[in-house]
Amino acid sequence: MPTGPTSPGAAGDEPAFVHRRTISWGDTDPARMAYTGRFSDFMLEAIEAWFRARLDTDWYRLNIDEGMGTPFVSIAMDFKSPVTPREPLDIAVRVARVGTSSLSFAVEALGAETRRLCFTGSATCVFVDGQRLKPIPIPDKYRERLARPGRADEPDPQ
Amino acid sequence: MPTGPTSPGAAGDEPAFVHRRTISWGDTDPARMAYTGRFSDFMLEAIEAWFRARLDTDWYRLNIDEGMGTPFVSIAMDFKSPVTPREPLDIAVRVARVGTSSLSFAVEALGAETRRLCFTGSATCVFVDGQRLKPIPIPDKYRERLARPGRADEPDPQ
Amino acid sequence: MPTGPTSPGAAGDEPAFVHRRTISWGDTDPARMAYTGRFSDFMLEAIEAWFRARLDTDWYRLNIDEGMGTPFVSIAMDFKSPVTPREPLDIAVRVARVGTSSLSFAVEALGAETRRLCFTGSATCVFVDGQRLKPIPIPDKYRERLARPGRADEPDPQ
Amino acid sequence: MPTGPTSPGAAGDEPAFVHRRTISWGDTDPARMAYTGRFSDFMLEAIEAWFRARLDTDWYRLNIDEGMGTPFVSIAMDFKSPVTPREPLDIAVRVARVGTSSLSFAVEALGAETRRLCFTGSATCVFVDGQRLKPIPIPDKYRERLARPGRADEPDPQ
Repeated sequence: MPTGPTSPGAAGDEPAFVHRRTISWGDTDPARMAYTGRFSDFMLEAIEAWFRARLDTDWYRLNIDEGMGTPFVSIAMDFKSPVTPREPLDIAVRVARVGTSSLSFAVEALGAETRRLCFTGSATCVFVDGQRLKPIPIPDKYRERLARPGRADEPDPQ
Repeated sequence: MPTGPTSPGAAGDEPAFVHRRTISWGDTDPARMAYTGRFSDFMLEAIEAWFRARLDTDWYRLNIDEGMGTPFVSIAMDFKSPVTPREPLDIAVRVARVGTSSLSFAVEALGAETRRLCFTGSATCVFVDGQRLKPIPIPDKYRERLARPGRADEPDPQ
Repeated sequence: MPTGPTSPGAAGDEPAFVHRRTISWGDTDPARMAYTGRFSDFMLEAIEAWFRARLDTDWYRLNIDEGMGTPFVSIAMDFKSPVTPREPLDIAVRVARVGTSSLSFAVEALGAETRRLCFTGSATCVFVDGQRLKPIPIPDKYRERLARPGRADEPDPQ
Repeated sequence: MPTGPTSPGAAGDEPAFVHRRTISWGDTDPARMAYTGRFSDFMLEAIEAWFRARLDTDWYRLNIDEGMGTPFVSIAMDFKSPVTPREPLDIAVRVARVGTSSLSFAVEALGAETRRLCFTGSATCVFVDGQRLKPIPIPDKYRERLARPGRADEPDPQ
């Protein structure tokens, strides 16, 4: 499955990470397109796949094994054209900004075959202490990985 | 159930429509709060309840019976404090702007008991022809209802 | 909202608890009816509402405050007629069997207006220790409530 | 991604079709495992992937392009061990019975790494005319494919 780095993207120097997402019947509504409420799931699934590929962790392991969290403080999405099960989405995830505690992502989703722009989005999360939910600096081991050009040593399992 | 108009809200002259939403176990994640991906559902459910209460229709009837749609072109949300099943959300919906074809909403969600601000959001939809998905003017019968001060003659069934 | 006890039901001596559920656009698929994958949510939401009304708790408080869980070991559903947003569902929940650690439910969902049978279901959960996930006897305070005829002193907040 | 036929399964002569499913943070609840309400989605996604691989169609195309549907008349699931994001699920789908109009599936989900049995399930759908929702015989072109040993000429895109 073509999840992994691609050629340098328009939004920055970092090669984008691309998460391919099959659109299923259950994602669609009687207007014969994916329901608006599903798109934040599409975006968040792609961002979590980015965590697995780029930071070698996921939100479950961060929470359970490392006692921290990355709650989102904002998301926004612009819907550009209908999404249907006729083709998967290629959801490109780029880091837009690295703060002391926060990570901001820029997301762009294209039809996997038509390359038609389907939605763009942004999302910001903050590293927090899992107990008190107070912001903490992004741990060094993750900050280091952010500095390196994107690699996806192991294919995303989905 | 306290779904209905309230006293005039901060965001405009229109009394806000308030949709109460129970938070269930299935909405929550191992961080013991509602999962980010659920919030667009919370917001959209509240906006659809507004359609039922204020326009006396819903997205299903608009689509199936009237051959039109109201796809969203954008949504955005800021998350202010954790949401848990310990109290329902009171999700206030106000019309922020009425265009020729578009309707923009401003949403504000408080804990039903603590009155703590949990999230704010905005969303814009466009009335379209159901066949060609081209924008159409907001039908007069709905535009008239938008001009009147909000009433909710019949309680929302949820 | 008519959530609460009704006259004695067909499935037992216990008056059924009824959870009313609005069907939203997001629940439906291009076949213009609620998507199969949504029905276990409908059933589980109704069973959790039963926990709130009959046992005065919910799965979140059981887990976080009392250190126990009630994972399901099985669910089954038969779909009898299409569910659409044209009417809410009245989902009746009855206790079918009380074991040492387990609770089995029988669920029957009717159209709130047409009284047409939409689905029937069953589900069994087991009280477990939250740490080791080992079965524990149903705590006395809950077992006592199971023995009493159903009451819903406080309306369900949804 | 290892979606495709495997060696002959225990439940019949047909080699099982296996759908791999990543478990995400959003699938899990505060008990640190996938929420019960998500499992019918897991099962249905796997069955729809089977339609794509074995019948070369999906529920969207059946509905929109061919004017027919395959609504489910029943589903049942037994939950055997907790599912977490620590490993994907390998969901094996087998045809348990082919009727005149109906197809019954037997589903078995294992942890992709531990090979631990996580859930078993069954589901029956019926081919119907898309307008009147009346049962129709399974179209010959699909019935033929059911008779052949399972092949997955094209990898599942998810």
